[in-house]
Amino acid sequence: MPDLTTLSHDELSALKAQLDQEYAAFKAKDLNLNMARGKPSAEQLDLSMPLLNVISSSSDLFSEDGTDCRNYGVLDGIPEAKRLMASMLDDDPDNVIVMGASSLNIMYDTVARCLDFGTLGSKPWCQYDSIKWLCPAPGYDRHFGICEAFGIDMIPVTMTPDGPDMDEVERMVALDDRIKGIWCVPKYSNPGGVSYSRETVERLANMDTAADDFRIFWDNAYCVHHLFDDEADQDQLYDIAEACAEAGNPDRYFKFASTSKITFPGAGISAFAASPDNVADAKRRMNPQIIGYDKINQLRHARFLKDAEGISAHMAKHAAILRPKFQLVAQKLQEGLGDANVASWNDPRGGYFVSFDAFPGTAKRVVGLAKEAGVTMTGAGATWPYKQDPQDSNIRIAPTLPGLDELSQALDVFVCCVKLAAVEKLLQQ
Amino acid sequence: MPDLTTLSHDELSALKAQLDQEYAAFKAKDLNLNMARGKPSAEQLDLSMPLLNVISSSSDLFSEDGTDCRNYGVLDGIPEAKRLMASMLDDDPDNVIVMGASSLNIMYDTVARCLDFGTLGSKPWCQYDSIKWLCPAPGYDRHFGICEAFGIDMIPVTMTPDGPDMDEVERMVALDDRIKGIWCVPKYSNPGGVSYSRETVERLANMDTAADDFRIFWDNAYCVHHLFDDEADQDQLYDIAEACAEAGNPDRYFKFASTSKITFPGAGISAFAASPDNVADAKRRMNPQIIGYDKINQLRHARFLKDAEGISAHMAKHAAILRPKFQLVAQKLQEGLGDANVASWNDPRGGYFVSFDAFPGTAKRVVGLAKEAGVTMTGAGATWPYKQDPQDSNIRIAPTLPGLDELSQALDVFVCCVKLAAVEKLLQQ
Repeated sequence: MPDLTTLSHDELSALKAQLDQEYAAFKAKDLNLNMARGKPSAEQLDLSMPLLNVISSSSDLFSEDGTDCRNYGVLDGIPEAKRLMASMLDDDPDNVIVMGASSLNIMYDTVARCLDFGTLGSKPWCQYDSIKWLCPAPGYDRHFGICEAFGIDMIPVTMTPDGPDMDEVERMVALDDRIKGIWCVPKYSNPGGVSYSRETVERLANMDTAADDFRIFWDNAYCVHHLFDDEADQDQLYDIAEACAEAGNPDRYFKFASTSKITFPGAGISAFAASPDNVADAKRRMNPQIIGYDKINQLRHARFLKDAEGISAHMAKHAAILRPKFQLVAQKLQEGLGDANVASWNDPRGGYFVSFDAFPGTAKRVVGLAKEAGVTMTGAGATWPYKQDPQDSNIRIAPTLPGLDELSQALDVFVCCVKLAAVEKLLQQ
Repeated sequence: MPDLTTLSHDELSALKAQLDQEYAAFKAKDLNLNMARGKPSAEQLDLSMPLLNVISSSSDLFSEDGTDCRNYGVLDGIPEAKRLMASMLDDDPDNVIVMGASSLNIMYDTVARCLDFGTLGSKPWCQYDSIKWLCPAPGYDRHFGICEAFGIDMIPVTMTPDGPDMDEVERMVALDDRIKGIWCVPKYSNPGGVSYSRETVERLANMDTAADDFRIFWDNAYCVHHLFDDEADQDQLYDIAEACAEAGNPDRYFKFASTSKITFPGAGISAFAASPDNVADAKRRMNPQIIGYDKINQLRHARFLKDAEGISAHMAKHAAILRPKFQLVAQKLQEGLGDANVASWNDPRGGYFVSFDAFPGTAKRVVGLAKEAGVTMTGAGATWPYKQDPQDSNIRIAPTLPGLDELSQALDVFVCCVKLAAVEKLLQQ
């Protein structure tokens, strides 16, 4: 594949004819493939089957502090679950609240609480005419969905290989006290696979914010989701809690994590961690909302995963399944598009996604072409606030759910669509 | 025990000396007993142990529509769980959303949604200077806690043996469009054990409300919680959905229920039911909040409880454990206070509580005396909005958690405290 941007009109036309044929052949296959959502495969889910039967008798159902996990009570989680989730959140168990199956639900509730009640005594955010939120983009569509639901104005922030562009962030938060928050997926980010540098973490912790009650929403969704077992091949993340404490802004962050992609999505456990004052505030606000989350499932998870070492050993099994899939993506994209000069993508060391940038102005077309040929991708634009990618270039590739054969076929279709859309665009120029 | 209100001052003084001695003897026993919360006993929890192992292999984890319950998805619940909860909610599965472990959490979220977004396009309730809520009292403290958390003004409504005093309710809702809701525990109410009459249900459905978006919050927490197996000894409830549809107000109600006191409190499943328009509205608002609730636990419950008949058979086992406890309460109160003319109480046919009215002005004193003698009761006043019982008389007795021996001792102490507080009060008059 030559550099497409150097081809003449005739050469492009000839290539287009060839690609049209290739595309028609794919369509004729009547495929039904999916690279859309970041779901674990059935093979990965099977890794956690022992979790379901780790408890077998009434006497097994007591937590280490003697609580009968079947009955009411315990707002913040049983001790062994707090310890387990603290190891993932890189925090002290006392600063952790263990909740239900969904960390998205915790994030939604946390935003809602700040809107309804403010935070640590600040003015309720709903009492402003409008508030604003920093959204490093490309980012996680469901984060943006929460802001959109509450009518919070989203401001995209450029992502760099070290995290959000901190010059932009610092400039904006210093000026506007209606900027109340920022979404961060600080490790193996969704979709870019970026892990924030220590400098980024420290600048987030130290920056001057016009809003006293500015909060970093630290969604550490992929904290233990390495693709490689050797520590040298794993990203490391500087702890936001430590950075904020050192900066004299100890209450600036809310951390979130879950076991959704460790055990079972939707039937795992999730957790919130924050400063002691923030945790006390959250518990006070949670008190009228719920008596306690599912402690039996907390106990299952604590017994099955045990501790940081247990999690690490379990995640290595996931990595063994996921590595070949990510390697296949890298290989197929390199083979098909390596020299074409119309696309770029990352090669993450963890997480669930590959972030792909098609030729500017063609992402929607690529996803549309793929869909027509039976390959479902995440909607183009989904990785941007209001689904508006200013370049119409970013596409999130989710290689985890399909098997290797299906993934291989889907990538062939995808590569063809990327080239076809680029050639179409170049022909118009 | 004579009618205390007919005794002379001297007779009361002599009785007080005797009761003081009796009370001192209880205190000397150094008791630690609890009749405070509506928790099932361990013996009841054991009834549901098979639930935990009803699923044993990967192939067991598919719902009847082929969904792998371990993975993401399904916002409104798997079909068999919707059917199961519909049987409890007396509704169509299509009108049901199955959620997580806590119906309290659904109620909190439902109130929050109405505040943030209004309902079916109405003005968000948070945009009023203040809104008001009807609170039949005595009632459930956690309902009142939700209103208090959101700063909603609570108006107590008199409870009658047929439900809330509908003359009061109709008069108020007709006049004030800021009255947006009413809390109802329509069957075996907490704490009064009252089941609403068909007339009450129909009047709720038919009444003219100044607010177009008035909602009945129908917390059918004890819908299958009969104390007696024979249908003739069970309360029946007219369906609010049917009544509202017939009245031409099909969107007026939100129903809630859970398996908290059927299987495991805090590790069960809960459900919401409403009109098709309300359900569609709720799903749209839930979409940014959560991807889906714990489907594995939904599957466990559907497999274990099966259907209405399965629930009924299971609840009969609970009733066999609970019946002697409620009978003991009735017997001890009758023996100790039957002729004293200083207290009244109900004798419910289901639910979790006995509502007790001490001599006016003595409920706080009774609970304080009991506590000092080692018997924890629900705080006096807890059954009223803002914890303010205008008569200072209502006390909720929760006989389910303690064993029969413990309960018997606790009731002896309680009866002594009731008499002592009444005599103290009569001596002051």
